[in-house]
Amino acid sequence: MNAVTIHDPTLRDGQHAVRHQLSAAALRGYAEAADAAGVPVVEVGHGNGLGASSLQVGRAAVSDDVMLSTVREALRHSRMAVFMLPGWGTSDDLRKALAHGADVVRVGVHCTETSLAERHLEFLAGEGAEAHCVLMMSHMATPAELAEHAATAVGYGARGVGIMDSAGHFLPRDVSERIGAIAAAVDVPVIFHGHNNLGMAVANSVAAAEAGATVVDACARGFGAGAGNTQLEVLVPVLERTGFTTGIDLYALLDAAEYAERELVPAPPVTGSLSIVSGLAGVFSGFKHPVLEASGRAGVDPRDVFFELGRRQAIAGQEDLIVDVVAHLREAAR
Amino acid sequence: MNAVTIHDPTLRDGQHAVRHQLSAAALRGYAEAADAAGVPVVEVGHGNGLGASSLQVGRAAVSDDVMLSTVREALRHSRMAVFMLPGWGTSDDLRKALAHGADVVRVGVHCTETSLAERHLEFLAGEGAEAHCVLMMSHMATPAELAEHAATAVGYGARGVGIMDSAGHFLPRDVSERIGAIAAAVDVPVIFHGHNNLGMAVANSVAAAEAGATVVDACARGFGAGAGNTQLEVLVPVLERTGFTTGIDLYALLDAAEYAERELVPAPPVTGSLSIVSGLAGVFSGFKHPVLEASGRAGVDPRDVFFELGRRQAIAGQEDLIVDVVAHLREAAR
Repeated sequence: MNAVTIHDPTLRDGQHAVRHQLSAAALRGYAEAADAAGVPVVEVGHGNGLGASSLQVGRAAVSDDVMLSTVREALRHSRMAVFMLPGWGTSDDLRKALAHGADVVRVGVHCTETSLAERHLEFLAGEGAEAHCVLMMSHMATPAELAEHAATAVGYGARGVGIMDSAGHFLPRDVSERIGAIAAAVDVPVIFHGHNNLGMAVANSVAAAEAGATVVDACARGFGAGAGNTQLEVLVPVLERTGFTTGIDLYALLDAAEYAERELVPAPPVTGSLSIVSGLAGVFSGFKHPVLEASGRAGVDPRDVFFELGRRQAIAGQEDLIVDVVAHLREAAR
Repeated sequence: MNAVTIHDPTLRDGQHAVRHQLSAAALRGYAEAADAAGVPVVEVGHGNGLGASSLQVGRAAVSDDVMLSTVREALRHSRMAVFMLPGWGTSDDLRKALAHGADVVRVGVHCTETSLAERHLEFLAGEGAEAHCVLMMSHMATPAELAEHAATAVGYGARGVGIMDSAGHFLPRDVSERIGAIAAAVDVPVIFHGHNNLGMAVANSVAAAEAGATVVDACARGFGAGAGNTQLEVLVPVLERTGFTTGIDLYALLDAAEYAERELVPAPPVTGSLSIVSGLAGVFSGFKHPVLEASGRAGVDPRDVFFELGRRQAIAGQEDLIVDVVAHLREAAR
């Protein structure tokens, strides 16, 4: 039986679904429930990570300091994790997180831009922290490229490395190839983080574990933006049935998920048209609101906009491309 | 490129989620939208099929006659299907459905009780109708047993045969084995019908197609009881990406799903604790309400009741077993 370490970003990635408005009481309640179930790692923060609370991507209801101290206090056995995107987060934020007792620090970068994590991973390694590097929008790179970037991150000091299916684009065989290539290239734990745009989050996560991932992310009730993340309390028993051990108590986990449904998740994730289209197109679903706005004004089909953004390989931060694409499609329709 | 025929029971299996209360206007609206998208087969009826509207399983808002004539009128290209469970439905109901212009008639039986379909399949074959036989709760039989029962059904005159994962218990390799065994045993189209209790409905349906199923069921927005069915508008593009053709127009299908979300589905299917537990236990999720009632009165954990029902191989119609199991668990806890 191979062990899989479940990494639970309900209190971080889930924040995207509530515009970062989880209260300290909700953070505490869920962290206690996850801890009681034996979830090994509980991640907390603004949806975009340390230091991201801002007018631009949304101000969180609670400061990073309060989030971290609240969850730290609530966890008796589980380890606490934080996430940071270089640019939003700084070395000061990392220092603060370590001072609050973060056990695992994840640095996220676009899948072909590992160098952006160099300074932070080296800083964390120097502090003796367990640093992970996660490659986002990983469908935009080949297995070989991902393996190379993963190895680079390990060279910077990452003690765990892996991929996020940020657009929810993968099918299981895509995941197997990529995780397999990374697992063959590094000797640290390999991470997989899925999204459910094509209904494949659980199947992709099982495929990841079978291909060598030993850290798998999942959120209670699939809490997360758009189509949501991998549903934690489904993934755990499915992994166990497939022959993996997680060390998690099923009934207590189901209780934690019910707490989440009651206290965190205002509405269950729905796989709507734009979630499906963005998954097919390989575009970050966070583009949904600006795409709807720009396409509505111009009278073009937002689904066409997503597919064209996919052809142009748009990535987060390139929201200005939306206006170009909308203008192009309007012109083409004349 | 292999072709898959999508069979859409939104207006039949989805009825379980609304206690069979879909109005004639909603039936017409969805049937028109599915027809416009090129969905090849649209199934309609009470959730439990022809003749099932009753106090015992719920009276439908609309009679079988009105359902059939309404959908028949709405379909210009799609074929119309009906479902019947021997016992609820009778030969008279089949005659009526054929008179209304049903193109495909499905007879459903417990996976090891094909003989119950004999008379009906022979009658339908005699009428020149396209009769299908679907084996329900198919996780309770081995691949070899299913293949044998499938061949028996073809002997009775079925022109299509396959399995329903009624409890949502399968993982993809379970489906591959079973569909593969059936496809090797018969020379008629092989059917797969999934449920999403373990988050695997889409992955299982793709596995079915890869193993030789050429008729795959799916419902708009996964509409259906409990964790719901396979989500139609996700499955179709995923099948296409996997190398199958469906002949369905994606945008029109997304439009149909949006119509369903607006007019048919009061709340999106949620994979809650009892959906997960019933899927793991291999018990029909329709047991949920009687289990909750009996376990609540006795102060036992409904999750334990589901797992014990699974060990006892309970099937639909054996709801009286619930009381035994609850008494047994209460006794054991003393």
